[in-house]
Formats: sequence, structure tokens, C-alpha cells
Amino acid sequence: MSKNLTTRSEDYSKWYNELVVKADLAENSGVRGCMVIKPYGYAIWEKMQAELDRKFKETGHENAYFPLFVPKSMFEAEEKNAEGFAKECAIVTHYRLKNDPDKPGKLMVDPNAKLEEELIVRPTSEAIIWSTYKGWVQSYRDLPLLINQWANVVRWEMRTRLFLRTAEFLWQEGHTAHATRAEAIEESEKMMNVYADFAQDFMAIPVIKGLKTETERFAGAEETYCIEALMQDGKALQAGTSHFLGQNFAKAFDVKFANAEGKQEYVWGTSWGVSTRLMGALVMTHSDDQGLVLPPNLAPIQVVIVPIYKTDEQLDAITAEVAVLIANLRKLNVSVKYDNRTTQKPGFKFAEWELKGVPVRVAVGPKDLENGTFEVARRDTLTKEVKSKDGIETYISDLLVQIQADLFNKALTYRDTHVTEVNSFEEFKTVLNDKGGFVSAHWDGTAATEEKIKDLTKATIRCIPLDSVEEAGVCVFTGNPSSKRVLFAKAY
Amino acid sequence: MSKNLTTRSEDYSKWYNELVVKADLAENSGVRGCMVIKPYGYAIWEKMQAELDRKFKETGHENAYFPLFVPKSMFEAEEKNAEGFAKECAIVTHYRLKNDPDKPGKLMVDPNAKLEEELIVRPTSEAIIWSTYKGWVQSYRDLPLLINQWANVVRWEMRTRLFLRTAEFLWQEGHTAHATRAEAIEESEKMMNVYADFAQDFMAIPVIKGLKTETERFAGAEETYCIEALMQDGKALQAGTSHFLGQNFAKAFDVKFANAEGKQEYVWGTSWGVSTRLMGALVMTHSDDQGLVLPPNLAPIQVVIVPIYKTDEQLDAITAEVAVLIANLRKLNVSVKYDNRTTQKPGFKFAEWELKGVPVRVAVGPKDLENGTFEVARRDTLTKEVKSKDGIETYISDLLVQIQADLFNKALTYRDTHVTEVNSFEEFKTVLNDKGGFVSAHWDGTAATEEKIKDLTKATIRCIPLDSVEEAGVCVFTGNPSSKRVLFAKAY
Repeated sequence: MSKNLTTRSEDYSKWYNELVVKADLAENSGVRGCMVIKPYGYAIWEKMQAELDRKFKETGHENAYFPLFVPKSMFEAEEKNAEGFAKECAIVTHYRLKNDPDKPGKLMVDPNAKLEEELIVRPTSEAIIWSTYKGWVQSYRDLPLLINQWANVVRWEMRTRLFLRTAEFLWQEGHTAHATRAEAIEESEKMMNVYADFAQDFMAIPVIKGLKTETERFAGAEETYCIEALMQDGKALQAGTSHFLGQNFAKAFDVKFANAEGKQEYVWGTSWGVSTRLMGALVMTHSDDQGLVLPPNLAPIQVVIVPIYKTDEQLDAITAEVAVLIANLRKLNVSVKYDNRTTQKPGFKFAEWELKGVPVRVAVGPKDLENGTFEVARRDTLTKEVKSKDGIETYISDLLVQIQADLFNKALTYRDTHVTEVNSFEEFKTVLNDKGGFVSAHWDGTAATEEKIKDLTKATIRCIPLDSVEEAGVCVFTGNPSSKRVLFAKAY
Repeated sequence: MSKNLTTRSEDYSKWYNELVVKADLAENSGVRGCMVIKPYGYAIWEKMQAELDRKFKETGHENAYFPLFVPKSMFEAEEKNAEGFAKECAIVTHYRLKNDPDKPGKLMVDPNAKLEEELIVRPTSEAIIWSTYKGWVQSYRDLPLLINQWANVVRWEMRTRLFLRTAEFLWQEGHTAHATRAEAIEESEKMMNVYADFAQDFMAIPVIKGLKTETERFAGAEETYCIEALMQDGKALQAGTSHFLGQNFAKAFDVKFANAEGKQEYVWGTSWGVSTRLMGALVMTHSDDQGLVLPPNLAPIQVVIVPIYKTDEQLDAITAEVAVLIANLRKLNVSVKYDNRTTQKPGFKFAEWELKGVPVRVAVGPKDLENGTFEVARRDTLTKEVKSKDGIETYISDLLVQIQADLFNKALTYRDTHVTEVNSFEEFKTVLNDKGGFVSAHWDGTAATEEKIKDLTKATIRCIPLDSVEEAGVCVFTGNPSSKRVLFAKAY
């Protein structure tokens, strides 16, 4: 198979777009801004879902499902949230088509089927969920509510890119309600940590935990926690957010509870989500010019076995040997595919599985049968070695663990060498343009400065890292005093 | 807890509506016709999903995801399908809200953000999927495509009922493409059988497999296979359908392939789906006047343990004993809840878990501790017995298997005694009104007769059973000749 993949150094953005399509992850659909997630891409998303879902349940959350539509009056109840999303709302105004009298075989919107109130296709579900919570909460005994939803949401985008920015995307959104401010903050932080552990331990993507500035905060939140990752082109990607909503939605939807003393109080809320955007982060963190590189935890196929043969007798002998290996690998919970297609040559198969990021490739030929060996190749390092068949299944199983760790460490090294402290705006611009990555700089804390820097450099404040230390300094832009460095970067 | 549940004999329909809400399965939302699926209901749906998903993958299918929206021109490409769904389409016409200049704090649809082409919120996904398949199929080597999607769909309904008929519902929809007519028919039949096995073996709901008449067929299909279940009020419920689409969608979307001889042919298609409607079937097949009755396979909690105590010392002793039981049950993969709430009395707890359909309840008091016993109660039969603690976990685990089987057999007996052969229209009406259930009758095969019978009796032809035998007879309505009996019933 000919890959013809644009290289990262040629054009990173083009490389990404081509790779997503050629590796069968997703493609653009006939619907503006909406993607089709293809089976191979969806299988990776299913692995993410399963692990996240396990973590959510382990931390006491339950799944539920709330409506796709939000009536306009409900949508606008929390004003900041509504204002934040108003410009990207798909709006249902009618509920029936009819035959077009002027065009036989064509349909038209039936003007007599106009809705009394327009319905917004949810861009996020705080409004519909808090309007429901009103009926679920009377007393402190009904709290906390710890609920998650797996759903599709729609945010109308003018410029879209597969996984990174699409009009419709898949996500999970947690929505919790608590009796106290402290408990809600604890929940927001807990879920940020769940996301960080998931990104690092499962996706092998190192992340920085931090707080968003007011400008970058979720519309309607008092505080937004985030995890920020760094892509190979030096741009940051927000990989997950967890919001402390204060009592904003409780007040907008009148959700009160009787506390232990019988006094009525407003409920405290959080919401948190990750989306199919993580697929983009996955591709851009690990992959190379040969194609996808998948961490073993996320690979739909962890090991592919390719037979090398000339005659049918050779193939039969190889297949018999391979059957034993497959059985032994499956016992170790390794997912294996035996690519015994007769329509393609080994070289084509090698290239195809490289493109699709299968972590380990095993090749077996007649020589291997004679010698009792297999050729084992790593996708991440593109190296291979010949191994004795004795204990090969344990070797491969251990190798998958090693690859998972190596991918994380490689990404961590890249990230750590791309966080640069700067102390002047000149330095800021030089680092941003020449090296990229996170620029750690003092900032005077004002939205005005943040905006000016963005206008001049396209860099935004990705976060105020949770582990940043107090340090007297001056804002790189205004020279005004600052007590903490924040992280700037260009971002997806 | 006071249940205050309307009984089935008082008002079956009211009983159902109350039960769904009181057992925390679902509730109506603030959005017309859309429901909220509550955590307890969603946990049951998740069990259905997991088992179906396993069966789909076992039969070679992969999951993918296609857009929520269908542009109008794409929607109307397959005319019969478009016509069939046109009257129930939610239509997106605009993509932005703006501040309403006349009403501070309110939003309005921005008239400058009108879409060039209206988007239909998918009522089913054949159109969008077949427009995608066009790009995926060139040669016979690309076939079959065996793809499933878990998604939400919207069909605008004027009169809605929780789970049974809602504007938005959750479902899975399989969409497959094949090189030959025979292979596509085989696939449609295979998936009907997958659904039948699932309904019977997993949900304990007996079903009749059959074909729909032309009137009842899916819009755009050549043949619709279905599974029909019978509810306790004698009304039928269509529990799943599998459609042989012929080449209709391939022709509408120009999906052709080069066969082994290099000749261009249209692809053959199928589609098949089940939805959250199955939740309604579940409730109406097994439940009783005390509340839900859940087959153990679907119960989020299979065993609930309630301590009976007066003093804290007694509770501590019971808890210690119960800890052992819980550990032993979990080893046998039984899901257990220990209801040690101190805020509620045992009677309240008994009633609550009865309402929620937990298959087995274990009660333990100080007497049991002395005697080394537990009291074990079955939800389905409302019977209880005292059992020695020796081997209790195996007893309970076996009991769950027994309950699953008993529920199926009970429903099967009810169903089998409610299939009545009739040979005149008088008899037809009498059986339908006095006894209900399926009425097995000769029919002359015309849509006109079918419609007249429906107008007069509200009964429709549920299916032409696959196992119906050739038998010379005359149509109960017109007296015209007929060679097969079909099944009529009033239906949900």
C-alpha cells in the first residue's frame, strides 16, 4: 500500500488531515461541518469511553440521558451561559415537511408546522439538566447528585477540522449538584484529576493541570479547571475541562434544598466533559510520518501477524504455528489479528498496519519455522528483532507495556523541553515563533493585557498551572507587578 | 414507602405511566415529547446495550458514527423513505441566536443566520449512511459492509408516552451492504434472530417472528422482518425490526460495485434496529401491582440485603455477617446492595425494592444470627423462605437463574394462551374485545381489507408468522380465498 502521506515538517496541518482520513479514523460527511467516525476510529473512541465510564462509576457517578433539545426560554435562563453559546446554536423551528407543489418528488418545510417556541439543539446540557434537577432536589438527603451523560452536542462552527472542531461532536458531560461550596469545588478538582490520570496513564499524553483565566472560562462557571496537552507542532490542546458552577445554575433554575436545619439554600454545581477532540490529541501527540502510532491501551488491534510465504504449503505450516501464538496471546488479553489475506503482498500489509498504528507486528516466514523464531517489530521505534518462539507471548505482552510507557516518556520529554520561561515580550515572541510550546511568563492579571497579547501573537493563556509557585515579577507586556507565572501558547 | 400505585385492572395505562415514574425509570422533561431517562432506567438500558453490542460484534459488525443532521436534498433522495418520515421531521433552519433588541436578557433567532439548505434531524439514518457508503464501495472486495450505530433519533409525535412513543429516543441502527440479494436477505433474517434470542433469553420476553404486510413495512424496504411481543393487557408490541432494503437505497444514492467479472452492479442493503421502546416492553411484560419485576439479567441490583435491628450492636453484628455474604455473592458475579440506611424502616425498604423490581431480597435479624439463617424473598412470586447460611450464596445464584427462566415461562404461557384462531369476523371481534391477544385469522392479502378491519376494530396485522403453515381458508372479512393465517392484534 502506498501511503503518500505529507510529512509533518512539510505541512503539519495537512499531515494531520490526511492521516485521519487515510488511517480510516474519520472523514468529512455530506453535512456541513459534521464528520463520519469510521469503524477503526470509533473502536478507539469506544476504548476511551469504556475506561472513562469505569472511572466515573468508580467515583460514584451514574449515567442518565437528557433531551437533545432545549426550548429557547429554558436555554436563556442562565444568561452568561446563553450568551456564550448563542452564536453557535442550531435551531429547530419546524416539525414537518410536505410535498413541494412546484417540484414533484421534492419536499419543503411545511409553513403550517412552525413550533410555538424554537428548540435549540444542545450545545451543552446545563440548562436542560438543571431544569430537571429542580424536581429531584428537595432536601440535603437528595444530595449530592452525581450524574454523567454520553451524548452528541452541536456547536455551529464556520471552520471545522476532523475531531478538533466539528459542528456535531460526541462527548460525555458530568453534571453534579452539592450541598456545599467546598464539596462542589472538591468534585471539580476530583474530575480534573480523573481526566489527567486518564490522559496520562491510558492515552500516554502528558498534561498540565491548571485554572482558566476569566476570559477563557466556561460561560456560566465561577472557575474552570483544565488539562492542557502539547502537540508535536508546539501548539497546545485543551484536553478536558471541569467547571465549578457556583450557584449560578441553581439560581437560574431555582434549585433549592432544605439543609439539616430546615433552611432553604441554593444548590452548588459542577460540570465536566471530554469529547471526541481527544482523538485529535491522540493522533497529534504520538503519530509520525509513517502514520498513526497508537498506545497499546487504545489500539483496537495490538498485534498483527503477517505470514511471509511463496507456496500454499508454506502458508499452511505458518498458519498452524501462528494459531498457537494467537491462542497464547489471547490468554494474556492481547488483541491479535492474523492478516492472511491472499490478495495483498507482505510489503503492502506492513505499510497498511504501520499507517494504522498497530503497536506490534509479527512476521513469520519459512526460515522462522525452521529456526523456531518470529520477527517482532515495534511501530513506535520502527525497529525489529528476531525472537525465539519460546516465551514469545510473554515477551510481546511485556513489550506492549513497555511501548505504552515509552510513548508517555517520549511525549513527556518533548513537553518538558517545550515549557520555556521568558522575562520580556521580545523573548516571548521569539520563543513562541521559533520554538513554540508553552511560554511561561508573568502577566498582570487583566483581560485587557491578555487580549492584546493574543492580538499580537495569537497566543492565549492556556492555564494558570495548579503547581505554579509564588514569585515576584513583572508582566512581560505591561511591566505591572505579577506574583505568578502563567502558561501561554498558540492552541488548537 | 407508600406506593399508591394504580392497579393493572383499574387502569392498565395509568398503572404503566405511574410505574415508570415511581420506579425511577424515566420522566417527562420540560421539552415537549422528550423524556429524561433516569439513572435507574438508564442502568437497565446499559445492560441491554452491552448484551446487544456483544451479539452484534460476535456476528461480525463494527460500530461507527454518522451525522445527526441530514440535508433536505439528501433526505428526499429515496422517495418512499422520505415520504414515510416527512410528517414527523424536526427541521433545523437557523444556526445562530442574537440578543432580542425589544426584550433585554432574551434571545431571538437571528434572521441573518438562515441555512441555505434546511437540515433534518435524523428520524433514521439510511440517507446519510448510504450517501457515505457511496465513497466506501468500489469493488466486491469492499463488501459486505457490516456497520452499527448507537444514536438518538427524532420523530415528531403528537401523543407521546414514556419509552413507548417519544419525540426523541435512543436506539441502535445496523446498516449493511452486500454483493448479492441472497446475502442481504440472509443478513436481515440473521439480525431478526439475534433480536429474538436477545428478547427471549436476556429479557425473558417471548416473541413471534414474522414478516410485515406491505402496509406496515418500513418506508423504503422490500421486506420487513419483525419480532412481536404480547403485553399483559393483551396488546401487542413490536419489539424490533430488520429490513431487507433491496437495491432501493443503492439506486437512490448510486452505490455500485464492480463484481468479480468487473461488471458494475448496485449494492444490496439491510437495516435493523431496536430502541428504548424495549424498556416499555420490559415493564409491561413482567411487572405487577406491587411495581417492577426485573429479570435478573437486566436488574442493576440483583440482590438487596435489609438488616432488621433495634440496637446499634445488633446492626453491627448483622453487618459483619452480611459482609461475608456480599463477598461470596460478588465472587459469583451477583450484584448486591446492602441497604443499611438508618433513616428508613425495613417496611419502607421492602416496599421500595419491590417497587424497583429487585429480583431477590434478603432480610437478616438477630434471630437469624442466632439460628445461622437468612430470609430470602423472591420478587416475582412474592414468596419467602428461611434458608441456612451454609451454601446460601450458591442457592441465591441458582435462584436468580431460576427466576429468569420462570419469568420467561410465565410470559410464554400467557402469550400462548392468547393466540386464538378465529374463522369469522364476529368471532374475530369477540375475541379481540373480550380476551385480547393475537387473533389468528385468514386474510385475503389486500391492503384494503387490512385497512377496513383496522377502522372497524383498531386491530392491525402484526405479522405473517414465519412458521405459519399453508392452510386453505377464506378471509374472515371478505370471504375471499386465503392460504395462510396472519396475526392481528391491537398494538402499542
